[in-house]
Amino acid sequence: MSEYKYIGKPVRRVDGVAKVTGRACFSDDVILPRTYYAKELHARYAHAKILKLDTSRAKALPGVIGVFTAKDIPMNRKYFRMGAIGDAWLFAENYVRFIGDVVAAVVAVDEKTAEEALAYIDVEYEQLPIVASLQDAYAAENLTRNDKPGNVAMPLIVERGNTDSDFAGADVVVGGHFVFPSLHQLHLEPNSATAVYNQGKLTVYCASQVWFHIREDISAVTGVPEKDIEIKAQMIGGAFGARNDQPMPAVAALLACLVKGTVKMTNTRLEEFLACRPSLGMEFDLSIAADKEGHFISKKMKLLSDFGAYSSDSDAVTAIACFRADNNYTFKSTYVEGNGLYTNHTPTGAYRGFGNPQMHFALEQTIDMLAKKLQMDPTELRMKNYHKAGDTSIHGFKYATNGIAECMQKAKELMDWDKKRAEKKPGRGLGVASLIHCSGSKAGKYEFSGTSALLRLESSGNLTLLVGESEIGQGISTGLVQLVSEELGVDPSQIKIVMGDTALTPFSTGTNGSKLMSSLGSAAVSAAKNLKEQIQQILNNHCGVLHCEVRNGAVYGSFTDQKIMSLDEAAKKCSYTRNGSPIVGFGMFEPTWTDYGDKTGYGNLAPSYPFGVQMAEVSVDEYGNYKVEKLVSVHDIGRVINTQMAAGQVYGGVVQGFGSATTENLSINAEGVYQANTILEYKPATALDIPPIHMAFVETVDPYGPFGAKCIAEPPIISIAPAIANALYDATGIRFDQVPITPAVVCKKIMEKQTEELKREREASARKEEANG
Amino acid sequence: MSEYKYIGKPVRRVDGVAKVTGRACFSDDVILPRTYYAKELHARYAHAKILKLDTSRAKALPGVIGVFTAKDIPMNRKYFRMGAIGDAWLFAENYVRFIGDVVAAVVAVDEKTAEEALAYIDVEYEQLPIVASLQDAYAAENLTRNDKPGNVAMPLIVERGNTDSDFAGADVVVGGHFVFPSLHQLHLEPNSATAVYNQGKLTVYCASQVWFHIREDISAVTGVPEKDIEIKAQMIGGAFGARNDQPMPAVAALLACLVKGTVKMTNTRLEEFLACRPSLGMEFDLSIAADKEGHFISKKMKLLSDFGAYSSDSDAVTAIACFRADNNYTFKSTYVEGNGLYTNHTPTGAYRGFGNPQMHFALEQTIDMLAKKLQMDPTELRMKNYHKAGDTSIHGFKYATNGIAECMQKAKELMDWDKKRAEKKPGRGLGVASLIHCSGSKAGKYEFSGTSALLRLESSGNLTLLVGESEIGQGISTGLVQLVSEELGVDPSQIKIVMGDTALTPFSTGTNGSKLMSSLGSAAVSAAKNLKEQIQQILNNHCGVLHCEVRNGAVYGSFTDQKIMSLDEAAKKCSYTRNGSPIVGFGMFEPTWTDYGDKTGYGNLAPSYPFGVQMAEVSVDEYGNYKVEKLVSVHDIGRVINTQMAAGQVYGGVVQGFGSATTENLSINAEGVYQANTILEYKPATALDIPPIHMAFVETVDPYGPFGAKCIAEPPIISIAPAIANALYDATGIRFDQVPITPAVVCKKIMEKQTEELKREREASARKEEANG
Repeated sequence: MSEYKYIGKPVRRVDGVAKVTGRACFSDDVILPRTYYAKELHARYAHAKILKLDTSRAKALPGVIGVFTAKDIPMNRKYFRMGAIGDAWLFAENYVRFIGDVVAAVVAVDEKTAEEALAYIDVEYEQLPIVASLQDAYAAENLTRNDKPGNVAMPLIVERGNTDSDFAGADVVVGGHFVFPSLHQLHLEPNSATAVYNQGKLTVYCASQVWFHIREDISAVTGVPEKDIEIKAQMIGGAFGARNDQPMPAVAALLACLVKGTVKMTNTRLEEFLACRPSLGMEFDLSIAADKEGHFISKKMKLLSDFGAYSSDSDAVTAIACFRADNNYTFKSTYVEGNGLYTNHTPTGAYRGFGNPQMHFALEQTIDMLAKKLQMDPTELRMKNYHKAGDTSIHGFKYATNGIAECMQKAKELMDWDKKRAEKKPGRGLGVASLIHCSGSKAGKYEFSGTSALLRLESSGNLTLLVGESEIGQGISTGLVQLVSEELGVDPSQIKIVMGDTALTPFSTGTNGSKLMSSLGSAAVSAAKNLKEQIQQILNNHCGVLHCEVRNGAVYGSFTDQKIMSLDEAAKKCSYTRNGSPIVGFGMFEPTWTDYGDKTGYGNLAPSYPFGVQMAEVSVDEYGNYKVEKLVSVHDIGRVINTQMAAGQVYGGVVQGFGSATTENLSINAEGVYQANTILEYKPATALDIPPIHMAFVETVDPYGPFGAKCIAEPPIISIAPAIANALYDATGIRFDQVPITPAVVCKKIMEKQTEELKREREASARKEEANG
Repeated sequence: MSEYKYIGKPVRRVDGVAKVTGRACFSDDVILPRTYYAKELHARYAHAKILKLDTSRAKALPGVIGVFTAKDIPMNRKYFRMGAIGDAWLFAENYVRFIGDVVAAVVAVDEKTAEEALAYIDVEYEQLPIVASLQDAYAAENLTRNDKPGNVAMPLIVERGNTDSDFAGADVVVGGHFVFPSLHQLHLEPNSATAVYNQGKLTVYCASQVWFHIREDISAVTGVPEKDIEIKAQMIGGAFGARNDQPMPAVAALLACLVKGTVKMTNTRLEEFLACRPSLGMEFDLSIAADKEGHFISKKMKLLSDFGAYSSDSDAVTAIACFRADNNYTFKSTYVEGNGLYTNHTPTGAYRGFGNPQMHFALEQTIDMLAKKLQMDPTELRMKNYHKAGDTSIHGFKYATNGIAECMQKAKELMDWDKKRAEKKPGRGLGVASLIHCSGSKAGKYEFSGTSALLRLESSGNLTLLVGESEIGQGISTGLVQLVSEELGVDPSQIKIVMGDTALTPFSTGTNGSKLMSSLGSAAVSAAKNLKEQIQQILNNHCGVLHCEVRNGAVYGSFTDQKIMSLDEAAKKCSYTRNGSPIVGFGMFEPTWTDYGDKTGYGNLAPSYPFGVQMAEVSVDEYGNYKVEKLVSVHDIGRVINTQMAAGQVYGGVVQGFGSATTENLSINAEGVYQANTILEYKPATALDIPPIHMAFVETVDPYGPFGAKCIAEPPIISIAPAIANALYDATGIRFDQVPITPAVVCKKIMEKQTEELKREREASARKEEANG
């Protein structure tokens, strides 16, 4: 570690003080002069035809500026998402298809008036049958949308090798049916946006993971060219994928255009549940074929995934759920049938893990079944099937580094696995699950593959890094500052960072795919190198400072090794020499070694891949009361850039995984009403619920990432639920193939099992008596 | 004109619609969360010792956050101005020296509380004698400041050639004493500033002509390094020099640091009069020696100029008043004794013309005296003494172009001078005055001579020009956009401009010296050329588009002359090729052919010089009621970039000159109280007062300016007052050697003259009778 000054250190968050002192400016803190406020009227039913929609009474209210419905929006249908199916629109047209669908919006002089006016909008509905579950959708007796026959949004079939013959020739086959519901990302800050329309131009203040996609959406809906739209990036109170697709900035912009002024909107918490983009609920039928030594041979899977009423990032999430987890193991063949289906659920999209937690829940439990069947230690079974650095996986992933085996070793140590397994106690159980993810994949835009960064040194010595991605709480702003600090030898406090203002930064595809440290980090380091070169050149060519180099925050003689001037002095000299212009270092990351995959999705999708092993220890009593006693989370994330924040990412992800395993659920009931409409009902894990978390990193040094870094953002959420489910099986002998696994579920399953056992005992003794009789 | 598409056209103001629709955001429109409000307590007397200053009662008021005096500010004395004497400080220390001196400042939860708390600050004063006029200051019986003996701020003596022998050998000598009072720039928008202190960093929202000097001032006063200060440029409601030195941003920043929060201040109109930086009042003793054909030989001048209590830009203004006007004529020798003096007037500084209107008032009337004495047409007398292109003036100005003779010719036509002069009617008079100014001089910073511009082309096709200077209403933003439009062949509506945000733009010395079109315009054109080159190179090297060139808003084949793609398409291609980075064109202007002058001020100060001739026609009745019947204003400004805005500049300047000639006066009375404390009392000219203005341009084509442009900003104000005074002499035979020339003054002078004539008649008839007797 000693080779670096700022890398691998717990450097304090650059946005920390602002956040904890309440001085950070979030979107709802934006107050602009002459602002109108908007509120949306959401659908009363999850599926209905709009028979009548009369806004005249609302329009007549004092203080109401305008009331708008789909009819007022020529480009309502153009609302689209990157790479997605493009079947969504902003305002409901003739039909409402989920509770949360927007029927109308009121713009008024203040929020209270806008809110009150909603009650004066007269809507008459004709209720229609509701598609409330994936099984309903697949059965297709009722339709979510009259324009989508069979409720099918996206069919996907991929076969690698010959699964049929591989299954036929296998020694062992195991399998099951697994259910993972829709989850809410539950970022604490509700969506808020303020849009300013002025002379054909738009300025929109909001929070997002994808500033430039937001700009694209706004342009599509309003008709204002992208070059006339500026997104002013605000501080973000959490995202976790939820801000990969947000209708609100487009709605606010549209309303601002319609009233030719400034319009502000802020969601209530209820609207965050009803009308945002939670994750996809999924169901899996999965089976694995293996030989008797436990070598995986083949995998077959059928997947149903819940798009909700319209598509968001649901197609990409479904694709990842179909493929990604397989790549951790040496399968000979795989077959997947993916079915993206419409239901009357709110449209679903990205959540940390992007489909990977869902699939790992199914796969890692099926592997556990195999271990039980073969009576093998599940850690050994996995070790037997892992890839190594240099391998290419069944779907084409190429591993420059792969620390999964070391992760397993470390996890076993942290859990004291072997000892606890040897001394197995009744009512106690151990579970393990592995994980794989991508880092630096070509997410977002087909014709665009990389990212870039600008590092601006101004005459005053001010150093500002400009990048088009977002800080969403993950700490990337601090990480990037550390990289530049290390490269220039300047204290992190001296580097300012601007992330995502579309008028200032490079274009980017945003914060997603856990790709920032790997790709954007490389661009930032390259920008710092370029800045140094430019300074050296200007000093050399124009200021008579020959043979110098920038390091350690100053300019030194290349040969003399003596400090010639501070970086501040150099900044002034270089800028004045160029008549005041800042010196702008340019860096880019071009992932030429990755691709989008062929038509079947085969290809090396990312420069690097993070791996991890997660474990759970549980105790269960006879009534189903269970407790997760301990969680272990070990990750190969390449070089660790910030020890404190990497740990923070692990804790955060593990807690979210724990919540998904034990309590969280955003399914709808038969009437299309959400199981949870408040945080209290949704029951995320609180500080009192969380078990001790033991974590460690395996620092492989990636050849592509900055200083060898890969990523940490998404992985920690991925395998917590299957680890807990596997531990519960270990403790109870019951397979919990559906989350959330609440005590009530455990109790019921235990009772069912006891009843079953009793029944079998009775039958056995009856048979015995009969035989004896 | 047809050679250009956008140059020389009345292109609409880029900021026009925002301003007229009230959507422009001025400093006082800035509303930030968690803002405190500050008010200043100003001195009750123009000169007094502070015996007691007790803020405890004010501090105790509910809602008051803090009350601060000089004692709370370690760096109070470090408040300084560029190139100035550095004798000013923000808060009065022990003494107050003008009504408006700041004794204390209150920071409170709202403006009303801050205002109320002022009354609870207990101050005891010991009144001291007041230095109320330049004559008082020069006599030095009383002192404005106990630290400045003789009230002398700045002595300056310069002699070129031998004036004594030249005067001795001359045929004719004329001279007079001329008085020009302090004037207020009267920009409509009062100063307002909002400063945000956050973790050692400052963000200040304000309006200024000199963003980077403001930043320097704030750093000096607060101790926050410049690199940690960001000035957020707001829309500006007029400046005219007044915003070349504004204490308010530094005060707001200081208070924000002291309360560690956000502080907003906005001046009342009264404070704009009391505590800003109006122009320097001046008095001249000036005489000219000539031969009998009217060739000027020599000039002698003694100047008193009123710095007020502290220095602002007063030294630079005084220096210009000592030199500049001379350069319009072929003097053999000149001598000047300049005396910058302290009085108990508010500190004085820059106002359109920067000392030049004051000196022209004296010089152009003295030339008129010579014409009368030699019985020559004053236009002919001037024509005899003008420089021509290629000449070097007595102070070292070198004229690449000089259209003064053509200006005179055109002015005579517009006034119908020869005919009116031939048909001279009683009670009517004609007056003429010439003018010279600088364009593109090295104003601002000794080690820094030029300016630069960045032109950013973003993936969306958005084109943004970034410059560090200010739009202060003069229209330069539109002018710069036109230059870039012409160079790229893109419609002006497609080019955005950012002016003066210190975190975004190049460093600059600001908007002053009428230098922007000439110097910044050149930089903007050069940035556009550079952008074109970069696009061509990227397309050629990375996109396989060989031999192309950017013109007419698109990319064309160099040889085929066929359109290959639009500029928007090229933007996307180039940016994506560079992984999202914008393409940033860089342009600079380095005025290597100009210098600061030697120790005596001799040198070529600017790349180009604008010239002009202004004329007035007046009618006067026997009671002194006079009317300016017509004004003529003809200017050599090089190539006219925007016909409508250039005309607007002329109208605006002429109206200000008219106001200074006829009504405006910001002198203090014997108690140090201003003659005017409201706009009503100050009486600027209104639409009803303004005579018909006839204007024209002489378009010399400057070799240095963009497309041949020089400048138009300051000149139109310069010679209106002497033209009116000369016309009044022509009508009445009375020399009005002091402005404002109110009807009361004219009436008094006419009565004095009549009395004098009556007396002389009586004496003559008495002598006659005596002789007869």
